[in-house]
Amino acid sequence: MSILHDYQKKRKCFVKMGMNFLVGQSGGPTAVINSSLAGVYETAKEMGADHVYGMQYGIEGLLKGQIVDLDEALADEMAIELLKRTPSSYLGSCRYKMPSPEQNEDVYKKLFEIFAQYEIGAVLYIGGNDSMDTIARLSAYGSRVNSPIRFIGVPKTIDNDLILTDHTPGFASAAKFIATVMKEVIRDSTVYDLKSVTVAEIMGRHAGWLAAASSLAKGSDCDGPDIILLPEVPFEADRFLAEVRRLQDEKQSVIIAASEGVKTADGTYLCDLSGSEAPVDAFGHKAALSGTSRYLADLIHTALGCKTRAIELSTLQRCASHLAARTDISEAYRVGGAGVLAALDGHTGCMSALKRISNHPYQFTTELVDVQKVANQEKMVPREWITENGMQMTAEFEAYARPLIQGELNPVFVNGVPRHLTLNNK
Amino acid sequence: MSILHDYQKKRKCFVKMGMNFLVGQSGGPTAVINSSLAGVYETAKEMGADHVYGMQYGIEGLLKGQIVDLDEALADEMAIELLKRTPSSYLGSCRYKMPSPEQNEDVYKKLFEIFAQYEIGAVLYIGGNDSMDTIARLSAYGSRVNSPIRFIGVPKTIDNDLILTDHTPGFASAAKFIATVMKEVIRDSTVYDLKSVTVAEIMGRHAGWLAAASSLAKGSDCDGPDIILLPEVPFEADRFLAEVRRLQDEKQSVIIAASEGVKTADGTYLCDLSGSEAPVDAFGHKAALSGTSRYLADLIHTALGCKTRAIELSTLQRCASHLAARTDISEAYRVGGAGVLAALDGHTGCMSALKRISNHPYQFTTELVDVQKVANQEKMVPREWITENGMQMTAEFEAYARPLIQGELNPVFVNGVPRHLTLNNK
Repeated sequence: MSILHDYQKKRKCFVKMGMNFLVGQSGGPTAVINSSLAGVYETAKEMGADHVYGMQYGIEGLLKGQIVDLDEALADEMAIELLKRTPSSYLGSCRYKMPSPEQNEDVYKKLFEIFAQYEIGAVLYIGGNDSMDTIARLSAYGSRVNSPIRFIGVPKTIDNDLILTDHTPGFASAAKFIATVMKEVIRDSTVYDLKSVTVAEIMGRHAGWLAAASSLAKGSDCDGPDIILLPEVPFEADRFLAEVRRLQDEKQSVIIAASEGVKTADGTYLCDLSGSEAPVDAFGHKAALSGTSRYLADLIHTALGCKTRAIELSTLQRCASHLAARTDISEAYRVGGAGVLAALDGHTGCMSALKRISNHPYQFTTELVDVQKVANQEKMVPREWITENGMQMTAEFEAYARPLIQGELNPVFVNGVPRHLTLNNK
Repeated sequence: MSILHDYQKKRKCFVKMGMNFLVGQSGGPTAVINSSLAGVYETAKEMGADHVYGMQYGIEGLLKGQIVDLDEALADEMAIELLKRTPSSYLGSCRYKMPSPEQNEDVYKKLFEIFAQYEIGAVLYIGGNDSMDTIARLSAYGSRVNSPIRFIGVPKTIDNDLILTDHTPGFASAAKFIATVMKEVIRDSTVYDLKSVTVAEIMGRHAGWLAAASSLAKGSDCDGPDIILLPEVPFEADRFLAEVRRLQDEKQSVIIAASEGVKTADGTYLCDLSGSEAPVDAFGHKAALSGTSRYLADLIHTALGCKTRAIELSTLQRCASHLAARTDISEAYRVGGAGVLAALDGHTGCMSALKRISNHPYQFTTELVDVQKVANQEKMVPREWITENGMQMTAEFEAYARPLIQGELNPVFVNGVPRHLTLNNK
C-alpha cells in the first residue's frame, strides 16, 4: 500500500518533470561503473520512466548528438547481469571540462535543447570530481533558466578521493584486485632462497587510498607488504633505506607497495627524479618509463646491492572486473538507483553518497549531498590512519577498508573467458 | 578387485625400492605447480608410501639438508584444497644447474647419501627444461651406481616450450589470465572517443605461446588483439606500422599484444633497441626499463602521432592463481600422480607428459617420455599456426589452446582475499 502510494507520488512527479531519463558516464572507468548504470536504468524503468537514454562518450558525445535508447540494449535481464560484470564505461566516457555560462552559453543552450528534444526530466551523471563539477554547473544554469530538469551526480572513482561520501564505488573493487594480486606477488617473491626486494607501483597520483589497500593482503597466511608509501607522507630516502635494511635482517623477501604519486618534501614526484642527464627513448623523447617503482628498485639496488624487481599493477587496477567486490557492485547499483529516486523526489544539484552506519556488521545507506561541495575537492588518507613512521597502515584503515572488499560476483565465463556486454556489439 | 590387485603389486614394488617419496619444485613457478605437488603427495600416500618428503628450494636446498615431511602440512583435506589454489612454489624453488659427475661427483654422492638416509625409493622433480636435465643426470648416475631409486620428471612451465608433451601444466592458467585481462584492457581502451594504440607486453623470451594466447580474448563480444607479435616471426617496423595505419582507418582503438621476446631479423630484441646513446637510470645503470611494449608504443607515437600506452602484464602472468584454469589444475594434478605411478611401475629417467586424444570433446591422457630427450630443448609456436602476415593466430592455434583454458576453481576467499597454504606459516 505504502509502496503503491510512493509509486503514484513518483508518477505525479514524472508528469511534472517529463517522462524520460538521461544518463552518462564520465572520467576514467572502474570495474563497477556499469553497475551504477544498471541501477539507474532499472530504477528509472521501475518508477515508470518512458525512456532511459544514454549519452555516448558523456557530455562531449551528447553535444555531437550521440544518444542511445537503453531499452534496446538493456531490456533483457541477462543483459543487466552481464552489464554488472563488464569493465570500462559501457556508454563510453569523456574528459570534458564544462565552460561557465559566461565563457560559453551556447554549450548550455545546445544541451538544454537536446534535453527538450528527448523530453528529459532528469540527468544522471556517473563520475568523479570533474563530473560533479559538470552536474553543479548544469543544475545552477537550470535554476537560472527555471528549468524543471533535475541534475544528479552518481559517484565513481577508483581513487576514493571524493569528499562527503564514506567511499566511492569503484574503489573497493580496485582495492580487492590490488590486495589479491599483492598477496599472489608476495607468495611469488618467496620462491627462491635469496634476499630480494620487490616494489609494486599502485595507482593514485594525489591520494594514497589504493596503495593503502595493498595492506588488505595481510592475514594469518600473509604478512602483507612490508612497507607502504603514500603521497600523503613526504618521502625521505635515508629513512626508507634504513627501514628496508632493518627488514632485510628479519626476512629474505621484502615487499614494498608504492603509490605512483609518492613525492619528496619539496613536492617532486619520485617518478620525475633521475640522474643529471634525463634518459631518453629511442626517438629522443624524455622517457616516461622511469616510474616510481623503477626508481625505488634502483635506489635499493644501488644502496643495498640485493636483487630487486619493479612491478606496475597498471591499468588492470581499474578494469579487472573479473575480481570485482560484490559489496562494491551492490553499492554502485544502489547509488545509481538512489540518484533516480532523488530526482523523482524533486532534488537537483546533489550527489547520492554512501553513508556508513556501522562496521560490525558492515551497514551503509545512501544520502544526498550538495554536489557543489563535492566538485573539485580531494579527500586524502587521514594521517592518523598511517603509522607514525609513515610506512604502514593502522588498524583504523583496516576497519574502514576491509568490509568494502567482501564478496565476489563470478564472471559469466564463455569459452574460458568472461563474457561482457558491449554497445552495438563493438 | 583389479584395483586391489594393482595396489598389492605396487606395494611389492615399494618393498623393493624403499617406502618413501621425495618431491621437489624447480625453476619459475606457475599458478598450478602446487597442484602437481598435491597430485604427487596424494597418489604416493594412496599407494602406500610411508613418508612423502619435500625438498625445500629444490635440489639446492636439499644439498643444504632442507627437507620437510609433508604429512605434517598436507594430511588434512582442506590443506590440499588450499594447496591447489596457492600460487608460487609451496616448497620453494631454485635455479640450480647440476654439474656432470665428471665435473663434481661429490654432489651426486651427497644427494644419494641423503636419499639413503631418508629411505627414498623415488624422486619426483616438478619443473621445466633445466629441471628435466637434473632428472636425466640423476637417473643416469643412479643407473651407473646400480641404485634402485627412480627419478621422474613432472612438467611445468607457463612458457609451454617443452617438447614431447602436448602442452605443459601452468601454460593454460597463464593463458586464461592473459586472455581475460586482455579482454578487460580492450574494453578499457574503447572508453574515450579518440584514436589510440595500446601495446601489451606478454611473457615469453624465446617462444611466443603466451602472446599467442592473447588471441583467446576473441569472441562474439570482442575482436581480440588486432596485432600479435611473436618471437617466431622477425619484426619488420615498416610492415608493422603499415598494418597499424590500416587498422586505424577501420577502428578507433587498436590493440597490440607483443611477446617480450620479439626480435628483428638479425636477432636483436626490440627491448634492447634504443637511440644512439643507451638510456641510463638515475644511478647511471643501463636502464632495463625500456621494454618491448614501451619501444613499440614510442615507435607508433613517433610514426603516427596518436595516443599510445604501454602495459606490462608482469609477473601476475605466472602467479594469478585466482584465475587459474580448472583444466590446468586437473592436468597438473594428474601428471604429478602419473609420475608416482610411473616410479612404482619401475620406470626411471622419464617425464610424465600430456597426450591429447581429441579436441571435440577435449580429452587427454598421460604418457611417459624419455626425460633425456626433453631436457634443454625448446618448442616454438609452429609457423603454420601464425597467419601469413605474421601478425595473427590461425584457427589451428585456437583449436589447440581454447580447450585448455576451460573451467575455473574459485579461490577460498577469507576476509575478501584468497586464502593460501604456506609452509611454516611464512
